[in-house]
Amino acid sequence: MRPSGRHLSEMRLISIETDVTRHAEGSCMIRCGDTHVLCTASLEPRVPPFLKGSGQGWVTAEYGMLPRATHTRGRREAKNGQSGRTQEIQRLIGRSLRAAIDRNALGERQITIDCDVIQADGGTRCASITGGWVALRLAVNKLLKAGDIVTDPLTDHVAAVSCGLYAGQQVLDLDYPEDSEAGVDGNFILTGSGRLIEVQMSGEGSTFSRDQMNGLTDLAEKGVAELVAAQKAAI
Amino acid sequence: MRPSGRHLSEMRLISIETDVTRHAEGSCMIRCGDTHVLCTASLEPRVPPFLKGSGQGWVTAEYGMLPRATHTRGRREAKNGQSGRTQEIQRLIGRSLRAAIDRNALGERQITIDCDVIQADGGTRCASITGGWVALRLAVNKLLKAGDIVTDPLTDHVAAVSCGLYAGQQVLDLDYPEDSEAGVDGNFILTGSGRLIEVQMSGEGSTFSRDQMNGLTDLAEKGVAELVAAQKAAI
Amino acid sequence: MRPSGRHLSEMRLISIETDVTRHAEGSCMIRCGDTHVLCTASLEPRVPPFLKGSGQGWVTAEYGMLPRATHTRGRREAKNGQSGRTQEIQRLIGRSLRAAIDRNALGERQITIDCDVIQADGGTRCASITGGWVALRLAVNKLLKAGDIVTDPLTDHVAAVSCGLYAGQQVLDLDYPEDSEAGVDGNFILTGSGRLIEVQMSGEGSTFSRDQMNGLTDLAEKGVAELVAAQKAAI
Amino acid sequence: MRPSGRHLSEMRLISIETDVTRHAEGSCMIRCGDTHVLCTASLEPRVPPFLKGSGQGWVTAEYGMLPRATHTRGRREAKNGQSGRTQEIQRLIGRSLRAAIDRNALGERQITIDCDVIQADGGTRCASITGGWVALRLAVNKLLKAGDIVTDPLTDHVAAVSCGLYAGQQVLDLDYPEDSEAGVDGNFILTGSGRLIEVQMSGEGSTFSRDQMNGLTDLAEKGVAELVAAQKAAI
Amino acid sequence: MRPSGRHLSEMRLISIETDVTRHAEGSCMIRCGDTHVLCTASLEPRVPPFLKGSGQGWVTAEYGMLPRATHTRGRREAKNGQSGRTQEIQRLIGRSLRAAIDRNALGERQITIDCDVIQADGGTRCASITGGWVALRLAVNKLLKAGDIVTDPLTDHVAAVSCGLYAGQQVLDLDYPEDSEAGVDGNFILTGSGRLIEVQMSGEGSTFSRDQMNGLTDLAEKGVAELVAAQKAAI
Amino acid sequence: MRPSGRHLSEMRLISIETDVTRHAEGSCMIRCGDTHVLCTASLEPRVPPFLKGSGQGWVTAEYGMLPRATHTRGRREAKNGQSGRTQEIQRLIGRSLRAAIDRNALGERQITIDCDVIQADGGTRCASITGGWVALRLAVNKLLKAGDIVTDPLTDHVAAVSCGLYAGQQVLDLDYPEDSEAGVDGNFILTGSGRLIEVQMSGEGSTFSRDQMNGLTDLAEKGVAELVAAQKAAI
Repeated sequence: MRPSGRHLSEMRLISIETDVTRHAEGSCMIRCGDTHVLCTASLEPRVPPFLKGSGQGWVTAEYGMLPRATHTRGRREAKNGQSGRTQEIQRLIGRSLRAAIDRNALGERQITIDCDVIQADGGTRCASITGGWVALRLAVNKLLKAGDIVTDPLTDHVAAVSCGLYAGQQVLDLDYPEDSEAGVDGNFILTGSGRLIEVQMSGEGSTFSRDQMNGLTDLAEKGVAELVAAQKAAI
Repeated sequence: MRPSGRHLSEMRLISIETDVTRHAEGSCMIRCGDTHVLCTASLEPRVPPFLKGSGQGWVTAEYGMLPRATHTRGRREAKNGQSGRTQEIQRLIGRSLRAAIDRNALGERQITIDCDVIQADGGTRCASITGGWVALRLAVNKLLKAGDIVTDPLTDHVAAVSCGLYAGQQVLDLDYPEDSEAGVDGNFILTGSGRLIEVQMSGEGSTFSRDQMNGLTDLAEKGVAELVAAQKAAI
Repeated sequence: MRPSGRHLSEMRLISIETDVTRHAEGSCMIRCGDTHVLCTASLEPRVPPFLKGSGQGWVTAEYGMLPRATHTRGRREAKNGQSGRTQEIQRLIGRSLRAAIDRNALGERQITIDCDVIQADGGTRCASITGGWVALRLAVNKLLKAGDIVTDPLTDHVAAVSCGLYAGQQVLDLDYPEDSEAGVDGNFILTGSGRLIEVQMSGEGSTFSRDQMNGLTDLAEKGVAELVAAQKAAI
Repeated sequence: MRPSGRHLSEMRLISIETDVTRHAEGSCMIRCGDTHVLCTASLEPRVPPFLKGSGQGWVTAEYGMLPRATHTRGRREAKNGQSGRTQEIQRLIGRSLRAAIDRNALGERQITIDCDVIQADGGTRCASITGGWVALRLAVNKLLKAGDIVTDPLTDHVAAVSCGLYAGQQVLDLDYPEDSEAGVDGNFILTGSGRLIEVQMSGEGSTFSRDQMNGLTDLAEKGVAELVAAQKAAI
Repeated sequence: MRPSGRHLSEMRLISIETDVTRHAEGSCMIRCGDTHVLCTASLEPRVPPFLKGSGQGWVTAEYGMLPRATHTRGRREAKNGQSGRTQEIQRLIGRSLRAAIDRNALGERQITIDCDVIQADGGTRCASITGGWVALRLAVNKLLKAGDIVTDPLTDHVAAVSCGLYAGQQVLDLDYPEDSEAGVDGNFILTGSGRLIEVQMSGEGSTFSRDQMNGLTDLAEKGVAELVAAQKAAI
Repeated sequence: MRPSGRHLSEMRLISIETDVTRHAEGSCMIRCGDTHVLCTASLEPRVPPFLKGSGQGWVTAEYGMLPRATHTRGRREAKNGQSGRTQEIQRLIGRSLRAAIDRNALGERQITIDCDVIQADGGTRCASITGGWVALRLAVNKLLKAGDIVTDPLTDHVAAVSCGLYAGQQVLDLDYPEDSEAGVDGNFILTGSGRLIEVQMSGEGSTFSRDQMNGLTDLAEKGVAELVAAQKAAI
C-alpha cells in the first residue's frame, strides 16, 4: 500500500559513508533511500559573542539544498536569501545536536555542521540530523585523539526520523510521495538511549488524536533505534 | 514554587477584547497575563498565485513584536529583516489556523491575520494563535452576515498553550521567567473539540521521557479548554 | 464643511494615557481622534559612535505603522524594509525632540523613542512627536528621581500639529479624509513657549501664497498650545 | 562675516550649461558656486501602475552623490542602498517639479529627472531642483517640437534656494561651511511667479521665531528670482 | 618541482562520472584531481523575457561552492548573497557554453547548468565548464531521443583548463598550492576542434610577455585536448 | 567600413582633463570619443583588515554608470544593488592598477579609484583603467610632494584598450555600435613598457583562432602606446 512497497514500519535503506571530503574535520554522506545529504563538521577556534570568555563551546548548523536536488529546479538561495523553511530546519538541526553535547567539556571552540542536500526524496531534515551527528562525532574524535580535549563532550547519539499518517495509516520514514500526501507529518529526534529531544507533529490541514500521537511516537522509537545502529556501524 | 505563585496547572488570567481597531474586518487584543497581542484579520479579494482559479481561499499570518515589547529593547525588524524565529512563528500561526478552515467554503479570497506583540511575557506565539482565531472568526462572521458566503468555513475553534518542565515540575502556560529557565518547552495547538493540530516539544539543551510528553499533553488539553471557553465568551 | 463637522480651527479630541507598557522607561498611548500611536522611551547606556567619550547623550526615534492600521492593509515593513516615507518621518521625530534637549545634561546615554501607529486617521507623524515627547519626559523623570542626572535635560515641551488648505479653507489638525484631498499640507513643530522647531509646508500638486503660509502658522500656534496643555494634564 | 566674503543676501555665482550629455532628452550641468549637479531628463513611454489608462503623465526624480563629491569619500550607495537622506531628497525633487506640471497635458508618459552631484559644497537639493527643472523644460520642448504634445504641460518655472541663520544672521544660499554651522536651515521652493511650492525650515538643535521665519522667506524670494532669471538665460 | 610532483605539462587525473543524480535531465560529477564539481543540467520550458517569441533557446549557468569545500570554512552565500567572484564565474560558464550551442536548433527552452563545488583544489571554474558541457550534452541527448528537437543544437565540445607561471615556469592545470603562488594565471576555454572561445590571462600583481602568453596558450591547447578526450570517453 | 569611418587600427580621439574636482586627491575626466568617465583618487589612512600592520598599502576601485549615461535609461544601482557586470569591472580595474604599484613603497594607506561613467559609447572599463591610472598618479604625486612617502610606488603606466572582430575585420578601440555587433571582443591592459597585465578575449557566441588572437594583441599594443602618450601629455 505504500508507493515504495515498504511495510508500514519499514525504514528505507540507510547508508552512511564517512570521510567523504578532504578538508572537513568530520564528514559523511548519508543516504536514506533516495535522500542524500552531505554533512561536514568544521572546527573553528572561536565562539559566538555571548560565549566569549565562558569556557563553553558551541555547536551550530547550516542547511542548504542544491537547486536541482528536487524534481523541478528550485531557486538558488544564494541569489534569493534563505527561505523561512531553510532557517527553521537549520535552527532545528543545531538545537537537536546541542542536546547531546557537554559544552563545558567541548571548551571554547565552535563546530559548524553543514548539511547540504545533494538529492531529495523526503526527510531531508531528519537525514541531516542523523548524518550531522556522525560528522560531529568524527570531528570530536579528532579533538580527543589530538589531546585537545580530554573528556568526551558528546553524551549520546542523536538521530531523527519522520512518521506520519499516509492514506489513513501510520507509517515510518516518509518518502516524498508519502510526505506530499500525508495528513499528519511528524519529526522525532531522539537520543541513542531513547530519550526524546524534540517532537514536531503537524496536521497538514487536518487534525489528529492522542492515540495517533502515541502510535507515531512508537514508530519513531523503532526507526531511531535502527538509525543509531547504522551510526554505530559507520564509525 | 512558580515565580508567579500560580499552581502547576493554573493558567494566567485571560482577557480577549474584540473590535479594538476601526479598519480591520476582525480584531481583538488578547491578554494572557502580561503578554498582550493585537490580532487583526484583513480580508482581501485575491489569493496566492498557486490558488488562482481554484475556487479555494487562503488564510495566512504575519507576526511582529514591537521593539520595546520586551525587557530590553530589541532591534526593529523593519530595519533588519525578519529573524528566523519570526518567520518560524508566523508560519506556525498560519498553518494552525488553516487546519480549521474549509478553503472551498471560504471561496477565492484571502484573510491575513496580523499578530503584533504589544507587550511580551512569554507565550506570544500561543496567544497569537488563540487571538488570531478570534479575529478570523469575526472577519468570517462579517462575510456570512453580508451574504458573501453561505456556508461557515470555520470548522472548529483553534487555541494554543505552552507547557514545560520548570524546576523539574510539569507546568502549564509558562511566563517569561519560567520560559527562560525551562528544561523542556512545548507548544500545543488544539481544536475546540480537543483534537491535536500541532505539537512542538523541545528539550532546551536536555531531553525528556514519554511519560513527561504525556503529562505535558494532558496539561495542554486542560489549558486549551479554558482558552476556548474564553474565546466563546468573547464573541 | 469639514467631513467631521469640526470648525475650521477645531482640534480633534486629544487623549494621552501614560505608562501603558510594563517594560519601557516611559510610555504613552496618544489618541488624536481616530489616530492612535503607542510611544515608548527606551533608555540605553550607550551612544552612537560619533558621541563616544563626548559626555553628551542622544535622543533618536523610530517609527512604524502596523499593517492594518490603515483602511486597506499595507505591506509589513519587516518583510520589505522601511519605505522612504517611514525614514523621513522617524528622522523628523528624532530631530524635533533633540531641539528641546540639553545633551550635556543628559550625559552619555541614549533614549530611543519608538512610535508605532496602532490606528491611523491622518496626522500620525504629529501625534508621534507630541506623544513621543511625553514618553521622553517620563523616562527623563525616572533618571532624575533615581539621581542618575541632576539637571533636567528637557528644556521645553515639544508638540506638533498639521494644518492645511482643504476645499480652499485654512483648517487645523487634518484627519485622513481632509489630508487626502488637501491642496496644501503643513506640519508645524513648536515648543511649549511657542518657538518654532520645524515647519514643513507642501503644495500637493499646487502652490500657496505668503498670506496662506502665515494663516496656517497662526492656526498651528493655536493647536500646539492645546496639545501642550494636554501634555501637562497627562503627566 | 560670511566665510566666502559674500553679503548676507548675496547668492553664489550661478551657471547653467545645457545639453551636456548626448543621450538624455534634456540635460544640464548646474553650478551654484562649488556645488555642481548633472541633471538629466529621460522620457519613457510608460507610467507607474496607478496611472495606467488615466491619460495622465508622471514626473519623478532620483538623486545621487558621487562618492568623492564631498570632502571625505562617502560610501557608494550602489553597495549599501540609498540612505534615508537620499530618499528624502529625491522625493522632494519629484514633488516640487510636479507642482508645475499639468499631467493631463503631458499625456501618459513619464519623465525621470536624475540629479547626480559631481561636486558638493552645500545646497545640493536646491541646485538639483533648479537644474532639474531646466532638464525637464528641455525634454518637454522636444515633445512639443516633435508634435507629440500640443499644449505645454509646464505651467511655470520651479527653483529652490536655502536660507538660514548663520552666526545669528539671516543669510541667503548657504554653502557647506555655513550649512554645517547653521542654527536654522531652510529650503524654499518657489515658482517663477513667486508662489510657494514647499517650505522646509528646521532648527538644527535650536528654535526660531515667526519674525525669523518671515525674514528668511523674504530672502528666499529674492534668491529664487535670481535663479529663475538664470534658468531663462540658459534656455 | 611542482608541489604535486607533476611534469610541467601534465594534467591532473580526470574522472567524469555521469548520471549521478536522479532528477536532473543531465548530470555528472567531474573530478580534476582533488577538485570535485557536481554539474547538473535542468531543462525548463521557458526562456528569459528578451527571447520570448523568438524561437530561440537559452543556456545559462549558476555556480556555488559548499562552505566547507575549502581548507577553511567559507561563509554560506545563501546567508550573505553571491560574491563578485561567484557572479563572475557563473557568467563565464554560461557564456562559454553558449558559444557551442545553436540557439535556433534548441528552440524556445532554457537549460540551466548548476555547478556546485563539493571539494576545491584549484581550477573550479574550468572543471565547471568541462563538466557543465557533459551535463548539457546529456540533457540535449534526452531532447533528441524524445524527438523534441531534430537537429543537434550542440555544435562542438567545450572544455577549459588553467595555465600559469609558477616559480617562473609555465605549468598546465594549476592546483591550489600553485594557484595561490602563481605570478600569472590564465583560464582558456576551447572547443573540441581547438578554436578559442575565451581567454583570460591575469598577472597577479605582476606582468607577462607576448612569449609567455603564447607558451601558456600552447599548454592550454594540449590540456583541453585531453579533457575533450575524457568527455568523449564519459558519454 | 567602420560605422564611425575610422581606419581599422585608428583610435578614437583621446582627451584627459586633470584636476576636475576640488576635493579628490587626484582626478581626471577622460574622454575616449563619446565615452566620458570621471575618475577620482581618494587617499585614506587605513587599509583592509588583511593588511593591518603589514606596512603595505592597497589600491582598490569602484565603478558606476549614471542611469542616463546610456541610450536608454538604466536602473540606478543604488536602488537595486550592483550588477554582476559592475562588480566584474571594478574588480578588474583594481587588479590592473595594483600590477603597477609597489605596495611596500606606498605604505599602510589606501587609495580608492572611483570611476563613474558620465556618458557611455563602448569601452567604459578600458577608459576607467586608463583614466584611473592618471588619478592614481596625481594622488601619489601629492604624497611624494608632501614628503609622506619618499620612493615612488608607481612602477609604470597602466592603460587599456578593447579590440575585436567587427564584420570579420580586426578593429581597434570598439565604440558601442561595433561592440554590440562584435563577434569577438577583447580587453587588453598593458604597462607603459608594453608588458601585458591582463588579457580578456571572448567569442560572443562564436570562436576565434590563434592568428586572430595574435592580430588583436598587436592592435592592442599599438592602441595602448597611444593612450600612454596621452597620459604623459596630461600630467
